[in-house]
Amino acid sequence: MEKTDCRSKLLEVGTKLFAERGLNGVSIRELSQAAGTSISMISYHFGSKEGLYSAVLEQQFACFAEIHEIRQRVANPQQMIEEYLRWTFQRHRNNAYLLRFYTSELTNPTMFFAKIVMPVIDEVIRTLATVIEEGIQLKQFRADIHPTNAALALAGMVNYFFLSVHATEGLISHSPDQDEILIQQYLAIFTNGVATP
Amino acid sequence: MEKTDCRSKLLEVGTKLFAERGLNGVSIRELSQAAGTSISMISYHFGSKEGLYSAVLEQQFACFAEIHEIRQRVANPQQMIEEYLRWTFQRHRNNAYLLRFYTSELTNPTMFFAKIVMPVIDEVIRTLATVIEEGIQLKQFRADIHPTNAALALAGMVNYFFLSVHATEGLISHSPDQDEILIQQYLAIFTNGVATP
Repeated sequence: MEKTDCRSKLLEVGTKLFAERGLNGVSIRELSQAAGTSISMISYHFGSKEGLYSAVLEQQFACFAEIHEIRQRVANPQQMIEEYLRWTFQRHRNNAYLLRFYTSELTNPTMFFAKIVMPVIDEVIRTLATVIEEGIQLKQFRADIHPTNAALALAGMVNYFFLSVHATEGLISHSPDQDEILIQQYLAIFTNGVATP
Repeated sequence: MEKTDCRSKLLEVGTKLFAERGLNGVSIRELSQAAGTSISMISYHFGSKEGLYSAVLEQQFACFAEIHEIRQRVANPQQMIEEYLRWTFQRHRNNAYLLRFYTSELTNPTMFFAKIVMPVIDEVIRTLATVIEEGIQLKQFRADIHPTNAALALAGMVNYFFLSVHATEGLISHSPDQDEILIQQYLAIFTNGVATP
C-alpha cells in the first residue's frame, strides 16, 4: 500500500471504529487489522492510537470553521439564522459519523475535547449569539431575549432532529427531500419566537 | 454482602461504568471487581453483562413514564409545554448519567434500544405533538405548524442545554438556580414561535 493510501485508509477505518466504540473501545491491533496494515504504520503516520483519534476528530470538526465564511457572506440576522440551519442540516447529511463524535465528546470528553471540540462549538454558539444580539439592536428581535440561551435553543432544535432519528422513524420522515421544509419550519418557530411583537 | 445490597451495588457500578464506556467497553470482570463481588453474582442477579446493562437502562428511562401523570394533570397546551420543560430540567438535574445513555443509545443503539429506549422517547414526542395539535385546534397555535416537528424542536431546545454544558462553560451559567429563568426563556421562544399572529 502507498503511504498516502495507508494514511487515508487508517483515517477511514479509525472514523468508523471510533465513532461506533469510542477511543477506549478500539485497540490499535483492531485498527491496523481493519485497515489491512501494520501497527507500525499507525505509529509512523499518527504516533499512536490517540494520535489517530485526534486526526479523526480534527477531520470531523473541520467543517465547523465554515461558520466564518457564512458570517462574512450574510449580514441580515434572520437570513444568517436560515443559513445556519441549512448548513447544520448539510453537515449532518454529508457526514453520518459527525453526530456520534459530537455527542460522545460532549458527554464523555476525551483528552482532545478541550483542544479540538470545545473551541469550535464555542465559536459557533458565540457567532449565533452575536447575530441574535445584532437582531435585538436592529429591533427585529425582542430586547428581553438572552442571546446565548437563544443561540443554544436554535442549535438544539436542529441538532436534535438528527439525534432523534432512530427513535422517531415512525413519527416523521427523515428523507433529505424534506430538509428544506423542516429548515423553514425551524426558521419560522425560532424567528417568530424571538421577534418583537 | 447481602443479596439485595449486592444487586444495588452492581446496578450502581454498572450505571457509572456503562455510562462512561458503553456496553461493549466494560467487561464482566471489571463490573464484578468494581462492585466488590464475584462474576457469579452478576449471573445470579442479571443473567449476564447484557442483563445488567438492560436493568440499568430500564432504571435510567423509567422517569420518562412520568409524562402520563403530567398529561393527566395539565390540560392547557401552553401550561403543558411549561411543565414538560421543567420536568426535563429535573430529569437531567436528578440524574447526571441520563444524557450519556440517551445520546449513546440514540447514536449507537444496542440490542436493547428497540425495547427500552425507543418506546419511551416515541411516547414523549407523541404526547407533545398531541398537545401542540390541541393548541392548534384551540387557535392558540398557528395552523401551519407541523406538530411532530415542533415537538422535536421543543425537545431539542431543552435537551441541548444539558448536552452542550462542557462546551459552553465560558458562555452561560449552568447553575441550577438559573434553571427557572432558562425554562421561562425556552417557553417564551417556543410559544411565541408557534403562536397565532
